[in-house]
Amino acid sequence: MNRETLVRSIQTKKSFLCVGLDSDLSRIPKFLLNYPDPIFEFNRRVIDATKDYCVAYKPNVAFYEALGTGGWQALAKTLDYIPKTHLTIADAKRGDIGNTSRLYAHTFFSTFDFDAVTIAPYMGYDSVSPFLEFDDKWVILLALTSNAGSKDFQFLQDNEGRHLYEHVLGKAASWADADKLMFVVGATQAESLQQIRNIVPDHFLLVPGVGAQGGSLEEVYRYGKNAEVGLLVNASRSIIFAGGDTEDFEKSVSDAARTLQQEMESLMSR
Amino acid sequence: MNRETLVRSIQTKKSFLCVGLDSDLSRIPKFLLNYPDPIFEFNRRVIDATKDYCVAYKPNVAFYEALGTGGWQALAKTLDYIPKTHLTIADAKRGDIGNTSRLYAHTFFSTFDFDAVTIAPYMGYDSVSPFLEFDDKWVILLALTSNAGSKDFQFLQDNEGRHLYEHVLGKAASWADADKLMFVVGATQAESLQQIRNIVPDHFLLVPGVGAQGGSLEEVYRYGKNAEVGLLVNASRSIIFAGGDTEDFEKSVSDAARTLQQEMESLMSR
Repeated sequence: MNRETLVRSIQTKKSFLCVGLDSDLSRIPKFLLNYPDPIFEFNRRVIDATKDYCVAYKPNVAFYEALGTGGWQALAKTLDYIPKTHLTIADAKRGDIGNTSRLYAHTFFSTFDFDAVTIAPYMGYDSVSPFLEFDDKWVILLALTSNAGSKDFQFLQDNEGRHLYEHVLGKAASWADADKLMFVVGATQAESLQQIRNIVPDHFLLVPGVGAQGGSLEEVYRYGKNAEVGLLVNASRSIIFAGGDTEDFEKSVSDAARTLQQEMESLMSR
Repeated sequence: MNRETLVRSIQTKKSFLCVGLDSDLSRIPKFLLNYPDPIFEFNRRVIDATKDYCVAYKPNVAFYEALGTGGWQALAKTLDYIPKTHLTIADAKRGDIGNTSRLYAHTFFSTFDFDAVTIAPYMGYDSVSPFLEFDDKWVILLALTSNAGSKDFQFLQDNEGRHLYEHVLGKAASWADADKLMFVVGATQAESLQQIRNIVPDHFLLVPGVGAQGGSLEEVYRYGKNAEVGLLVNASRSIIFAGGDTEDFEKSVSDAARTLQQEMESLMSR
């Protein structure tokens, strides 16, 4: 999916919501365990319940990989089920030397047909570049993450006071423009968003951490938006597990997604 | 596998060689493609040809993941085939927020029964800690990698001149001792090894980059060894593809591994 299509989708739906399909087998409603493929069955219903309110889906690959062969099949079926109107993000956080990154790129962009994949920056350019060679595909590079451990290294400062995550933003923005590259910036780091926008005014930011991790959507929008919105705000657990262990969980899932979409619509109309 | 067993294995075999099972389907001998599981068939023969000369095996997960379901089966069969006397390392370079890292840890240490897994440090402590909760299992954290892109961020300096990779070494060494934690340090960075040993005198270093990537074994040993050797030097392509596209490739594979082992024995006996 190209940038123009994504921007239009956000404007049309008045939503920049990404639903994180972190479909933990131990947390899905128990009655689904009677189905031949419980994870796919769960995802199918979550997608039906949320597709009108979101513009993207982001399965975290860990939850599928943990289930072995069956998990990869569930991931493939899920990807196939997501409407082509929605951006699909493999949250894989890969990153390896060049010849290996080439294989990962093949896996996520060819074997699977994801639109985007999340990448860890630690190993630098040749770990990212193989992913940039695909047309209409996206690299989403970790910059400033939403977890407590983000403090350990991402805030390391050089002698001019620039943090590691600012180096990542600045350097990576020279590798690819805003048509192929996004950055992960956690919603729990809203105070840093303004200054991040100075470094990468045009790039999309994928923002996890609203919901279960406690970030504020209003602050993310205020400090993080650009002229085209330029944000994808991800919520995972707070949406997909909103229905708890019930047979009609889709209703709560749909409500949780709609609530976020309505808040987004309200912010976008200000 | 615990540290004592690994150290004893190195002393007994006079080898600190790790064979990287980066079993690229496009590079294995063509006649193996007629077997039901070509990758496993290749690995089985490589293991038979090298097990007397090495103390560890390190499949890079990318090469298996790229093949989908069949790839994961080949990985499981390969892991099962490796003798229990050898340390097994999943080269996965994972790293995610806590609840997700917990799943990855489960995948590699429980679903699979790897002894060790490589982890990327960018997301900090909570991305590493779930892997440290398993007994006799190892985290191998990326510190200073062997690729060109290592220059992009790993050498970022704080105002006291300490590099990012030194922060990673120092901070992670406070998370876990030398019985549970190793570090990846590329052989192409041999000049940094002496100073790395000042920061982590006791931890094992997993050293890729000898062979295809051009690092020097002699320099790695000179600057990187500690009282217990404390090194695992990995070679992948230079060993496993030494036989080219031939039906008796095992002979060349065995020779390539023995040559490295003999060089190691000579270094260890000085």
